Amino acid sequence: MHKTPAYAAPNATSPLAPFTVERRDPGPHEVLIDILYCGVCHSDIHQARDEWGGSIFPMVPGHEIVGRVAQVGSEVTRHKVGDAVGVGCFVDSCRTCTQCEAGEEQFCQHGMSATYNGYERDAMHRFDRTRPTYGGYSTRITVDEAYVLRIPDGMPLDRAAPLLCAGITTYSPLRHHGVKPGDRVAVVGLGGLGHMAVKIAAAMGAEVTVLSTSESKRADAKGLGAHDFAATGDGSVFKERARSFDLIIDSVSAEHDYNAYLGLLKVGGTMVLLGIPEVPAPVAAGVLITGRRNLTGSMIGGIAETQEMLDFCAAHDIAADIELIDIDAINDAYERMLKGDVRYRFVIDTASLGQAD
Amino acid sequence: MHKTPAYAAPNATSPLAPFTVERRDPGPHEVLIDILYCGVCHSDIHQARDEWGGSIFPMVPGHEIVGRVAQVGSEVTRHKVGDAVGVGCFVDSCRTCTQCEAGEEQFCQHGMSATYNGYERDAMHRFDRTRPTYGGYSTRITVDEAYVLRIPDGMPLDRAAPLLCAGITTYSPLRHHGVKPGDRVAVVGLGGLGHMAVKIAAAMGAEVTVLSTSESKRADAKGLGAHDFAATGDGSVFKERARSFDLIIDSVSAEHDYNAYLGLLKVGGTMVLLGIPEVPAPVAAGVLITGRRNLTGSMIGGIAETQEMLDFCAAHDIAADIELIDIDAINDAYERMLKGDVRYRFVIDTASLGQAD
Repeated sequence: MHKTPAYAAPNATSPLAPFTVERRDPGPHEVLIDILYCGVCHSDIHQARDEWGGSIFPMVPGHEIVGRVAQVGSEVTRHKVGDAVGVGCFVDSCRTCTQCEAGEEQFCQHGMSATYNGYERDAMHRFDRTRPTYGGYSTRITVDEAYVLRIPDGMPLDRAAPLLCAGITTYSPLRHHGVKPGDRVAVVGLGGLGHMAVKIAAAMGAEVTVLSTSESKRADAKGLGAHDFAATGDGSVFKERARSFDLIIDSVSAEHDYNAYLGLLKVGGTMVLLGIPEVPAPVAAGVLITGRRNLTGSMIGGIAETQEMLDFCAAHDIAADIELIDIDAINDAYERMLKGDVRYRFVIDTASLGQAD
Repeated sequence: MHKTPAYAAPNATSPLAPFTVERRDPGPHEVLIDILYCGVCHSDIHQARDEWGGSIFPMVPGHEIVGRVAQVGSEVTRHKVGDAVGVGCFVDSCRTCTQCEAGEEQFCQHGMSATYNGYERDAMHRFDRTRPTYGGYSTRITVDEAYVLRIPDGMPLDRAAPLLCAGITTYSPLRHHGVKPGDRVAVVGLGGLGHMAVKIAAAMGAEVTVLSTSESKRADAKGLGAHDFAATGDGSVFKERARSFDLIIDSVSAEHDYNAYLGLLKVGGTMVLLGIPEVPAPVAAGVLITGRRNLTGSMIGGIAETQEMLDFCAAHDIAADIELIDIDAINDAYERMLKGDVRYRFVIDTASLGQAD
């Protein structure tokens, strides 16, 4: 076992503070990773504050992990010591259900093992509820090689970290819904997810429009590669751009009017929800029926698709726009994120956690 | 012009009563049809009572029309005198927009010409707001041949009438979403639409389950070809059959909990709304996101698809289950429909309207 410096939320109401986790020696199929960077996802806040219920404390958040392989198990074939690797939102799954077989482990019928605030699995790949998972706000992690991604050569490792969640969360629906050159894609909300959606959709050849409540994001949207921008504040956009888009990526978790956005879709268009508002939003059947429009959702992606996303980003020179922080800034970073004050992702430099033993 | 006996709603609050419509001589591309049967659709009631707003009175409802060609224009090539033909929910469209070009005239960007409670088009295919359309509660109608369907030989004409709306409304989403042998399809609600959905889905080889609030429909569901039935009354079905279905055809217009039904879908499954509840229903983003489930709608079908549906029904010996009525029973029929007291579609025998001049 390796005593490893970390930061943890001791409970739902206290700030994150220094903590120590034990990381196991890699089993035959596992790798021990020295974590270099870990992105800070909005869901870290939700879970650290138990806003979704059922949180496991103490909690070491972090599921946008990039580092280098420090040690490999005897049977490991996919990774070798020194490789730049990543770990995303889950570290295991049942491996036998329809979804796992299809490479959509994020929808595992028995539930994925979340990278933190979840449980490790036993030899039968069932949850071992005596062993909670601890995430990337730490300097090391031991993970089955099948759930470890390769970071392509040349990709900046700090800016790669957010790809493991924000990147795949936006790549997956763009890919799943077959975005191709010339498609008109709208991205609603320009935060951690939205800024990746813009970059990736533009790289796929789509004509990308950012829809944001805030006119202040216009220049940024263009800078990220959006072809167009519309502020939604006075509502005129919903009339002016009715029936305009093939696909809408909706990255907003705050309450908003789905029906207004659905009206922006062409006949047969699709709106993909990535955020979960606190209260279910009313959907008017008419706006779906009269244009055969689709309302759907998407949740991260499978391991194979995550690797594909990383390779796609490398090929298109895409990485996240980040603000690198030391771990002792994490509580302030949470507050700033709640105000939307980050362009576009905080990434923890885990060197600031100190040396492992 | 041909003075033609009809029944009309004089306004939103009076019962339907005898009326006379003028039917034009067929233009070069038109056919004059002697109407034999006309199905009674729930939307006839909504529109006759102006429940959707904007109704045009006096209104002759009826968009499930079957009859025989009585006269053809000089350029008509698709139909000849004596042919059994049908007219569905629209009699014209702009013919030039993306949707019309794609054969999805029901989504015409300029609006289809509804068979009743709409407007005829001028020579430029723009709405002529001086000429309202009058529907099938009458003994004759003049329609452009391109918007007239062929009723396949051997199909019983009275039982064919409801296919023009109820049939295509259910066939189209089953076809669009690629239902194939072995797919698990649920049909919510067993009325005019639901009973057609069961027959067509079963003929496509799907394993069909009827979900109904009423246990009383169990035997009927099986009789129509459903493989299984579940009453939704006590809610246990939503737990027991979670993640069970590939596709749900939801034919219910009354308020109901979309989220409960969405939870019955497998990962990647789709729920198609056909009915429009009065109040938009709350949709929980989580149930879409955690299973990449889709909520969509569907509205009748294009002309080519409607012909395909008729040919499919003929090949599979499918027609609607009907109760044939005389026109003077129409107001009672409306009341019975509002109580769900019809298995499964009223069809007017237009001989009861009397002779045309």
